Amino acid sequence: MTDLNSIGLAAKKAARELSRLSTQQKNAALAIMAEELLANEAQILRANSQDVANAKAKGLRPSLINRLVLDKAGLAAISQGLDDLITLADPVGEVVSGGVRPNGLQIQQIRVPFGVIGMIYEARPNVTVDAAGLCLKSGNAVILRGGSEAIESNLVLTMVLQDALIQAGLPGNAIQLIADTDRDVVNAMLRLNKYIDVLIPRGGAGLIRLVVENATVPVIETGTGNCHVFMDREGNFAKGIAITVNSKTDKPGVCNAAETLLVDRTVAAEFLPRVARELIARGVELRGCPESIAIIPQMKPATEEDWGMEYLDLIMAVKVVEGIDEAIDHITTYGTQHSETIITDNYSKARKFLREVDAAAVYVNASTRFTDGSRFGFGAEIGISTQKLHARGPMGLREMTTSKYVIMGDGQIVL
Amino acid sequence: MTDLNSIGLAAKKAARELSRLSTQQKNAALAIMAEELLANEAQILRANSQDVANAKAKGLRPSLINRLVLDKAGLAAISQGLDDLITLADPVGEVVSGGVRPNGLQIQQIRVPFGVIGMIYEARPNVTVDAAGLCLKSGNAVILRGGSEAIESNLVLTMVLQDALIQAGLPGNAIQLIADTDRDVVNAMLRLNKYIDVLIPRGGAGLIRLVVENATVPVIETGTGNCHVFMDREGNFAKGIAITVNSKTDKPGVCNAAETLLVDRTVAAEFLPRVARELIARGVELRGCPESIAIIPQMKPATEEDWGMEYLDLIMAVKVVEGIDEAIDHITTYGTQHSETIITDNYSKARKFLREVDAAAVYVNASTRFTDGSRFGFGAEIGISTQKLHARGPMGLREMTTSKYVIMGDGQIVL
Repeated sequence: MTDLNSIGLAAKKAARELSRLSTQQKNAALAIMAEELLANEAQILRANSQDVANAKAKGLRPSLINRLVLDKAGLAAISQGLDDLITLADPVGEVVSGGVRPNGLQIQQIRVPFGVIGMIYEARPNVTVDAAGLCLKSGNAVILRGGSEAIESNLVLTMVLQDALIQAGLPGNAIQLIADTDRDVVNAMLRLNKYIDVLIPRGGAGLIRLVVENATVPVIETGTGNCHVFMDREGNFAKGIAITVNSKTDKPGVCNAAETLLVDRTVAAEFLPRVARELIARGVELRGCPESIAIIPQMKPATEEDWGMEYLDLIMAVKVVEGIDEAIDHITTYGTQHSETIITDNYSKARKFLREVDAAAVYVNASTRFTDGSRFGFGAEIGISTQKLHARGPMGLREMTTSKYVIMGDGQIVL
Repeated sequence: MTDLNSIGLAAKKAARELSRLSTQQKNAALAIMAEELLANEAQILRANSQDVANAKAKGLRPSLINRLVLDKAGLAAISQGLDDLITLADPVGEVVSGGVRPNGLQIQQIRVPFGVIGMIYEARPNVTVDAAGLCLKSGNAVILRGGSEAIESNLVLTMVLQDALIQAGLPGNAIQLIADTDRDVVNAMLRLNKYIDVLIPRGGAGLIRLVVENATVPVIETGTGNCHVFMDREGNFAKGIAITVNSKTDKPGVCNAAETLLVDRTVAAEFLPRVARELIARGVELRGCPESIAIIPQMKPATEEDWGMEYLDLIMAVKVVEGIDEAIDHITTYGTQHSETIITDNYSKARKFLREVDAAAVYVNASTRFTDGSRFGFGAEIGISTQKLHARGPMGLREMTTSKYVIMGDGQIVL
């Protein structure tokens, strides 16, 4: 098995150098990385074809193979992603808080890189480049562990990125890939507290659980989204229909898509047929509670399990509720604290929903699909955190830093 | 063994109520808690005497018994601590960031309570009240697990606090103590992800390690401090001596006390005898590198182990270094990223030290002893974090919150 200690030590050393770089130096490296990806297009696509051929030979599911495939346009988009990072503000050095104490000590809390970030992810090779770029811009060294299906692509991508770093005069070890596809390597990585400051897993529920349950290194969990739309009795029907359809069908396979529609009993008989028509027209399968089925007989019955499901598909659970309190109770019981929205024109209910729903993003009269780094204006995101520690919701460059207190004195001692 | 699920469920329910309270309601409860501690003084001190008697019968070390003892003055100070919390700003609801997106969506990131905090700590019964007060003020329910030595004191203290909560019209379960002293309970608590949002261990290195290595619930590590004073060749001797003596001897048993003195070779022969005289006069045992011993022959030789020690005692390791680079290398190798200080009047070296030393608090010309919530102006602290995730350095009320994004729209959908 690969010796992670030498990788960790090299990363730590690179991290110290990165923490001293100016924004200009990091941006220059990003520009070279973006260029080199395009210059090495043939080699990258060839390695990717090899991954795809191997995956097909192994009989991998078509949806997984889809995620694996990289074409010219895809590579150009990845390269453009690095160029886009250049325009974003560097979080390192930002003063978070500060002031002067009565004894004259000047205390400032400033943003600094974490040091070494460990990324564990699955099949998509674009994550290799995205993560490397975000880590570099935020001054962090990164140790990448991608899925074994994408190993050939990842090896070439990492080599190209490392060459670019060296061209830019930066340490090549700022971006390292663990080439060993042995699963035990992941377990060792989860406990490499000596060298890794933070772990960010990106992938399905199984991967996230593995990391959360076994890591001793601090983890930022990028979790699943069982998101709800609640149609209040005082909500506008047109907005309710548009937001439900958008939240469910705009991109059903992502974590900010809605999975359950809750409808206030008072308006259920009037609202449900109208929203169901639009959803069904877009191929959505509806699974309802008995009351919903009484209104829309073609719905399948929802089981207890449906309320907790992240379908990631054109399926939506539907439940009639007594009012806002039952809606909030349902969300509290079954939600994953990701994104929740209420459709209402009642001021007090809007305030109540915003205050009492415990989730990363809580909306009034807007689609859950907005929970996203670029739609929030962060420019880029490393993932969406559903945990409460450190970062919650979309994580941009700012969330990839920690802080330190810098204190300047003139000989002060405590009395 | 105690069923932690029912405790967890009750805490979660209480947390939902707490999150809705106004600052006034929380302050009123704190005032009643402070009063009730004094009103129940006899009962509390009797229970504490029982703990102390049990500890003596078991042959506990005097230093541990010392931490356990509560007297009239100690209880009054604890009660005053709750009153002091009333005057502090409530972090809940604070707008961290916000703005309006081009499509009219108004996005605000606001501070909200974590929900349920799990505190695992050792012998000091004052932690029971301090933690309960800080959690309440920050809108969190708390599950307390104190050391078995303090169980009688903790039972009475918790009962008094719960009665006070109920008097104030708040849920009594906002503060719960796990009365079961079975060690397996701690292990179960570490994995109670369903009900506990964050764990904060407070105690010795063994307890912290147990929690970090076994918890699946996110942890805020309050770690150990192996802090350094670096005397640069361009530093002022008087300041260097005062800061070294203060950092080492003001309160040697705490994490922000200095453990190692690093001295630039150029000034070692002149500086070391002067600072050693002051340290030895205050009973400090010095353990030096060979070069230091050549200057101060009465020093004991320091072993490799000494460089990594948190003595928490009147002992100090001393090392002569080539200059700032070797000093930073030494701190990087042996430090625990807590508090580090340089004594210098050189502008560039001050900047370099502040930038390159990776620690929660980095000082120029000031004592490491300032790393403390109240000395930083936070008013109170739950501990000093040495991890990089979420909070780093002294943690006040602000660090006991998470955030959520609150988004107000008028029917926006993603296009």
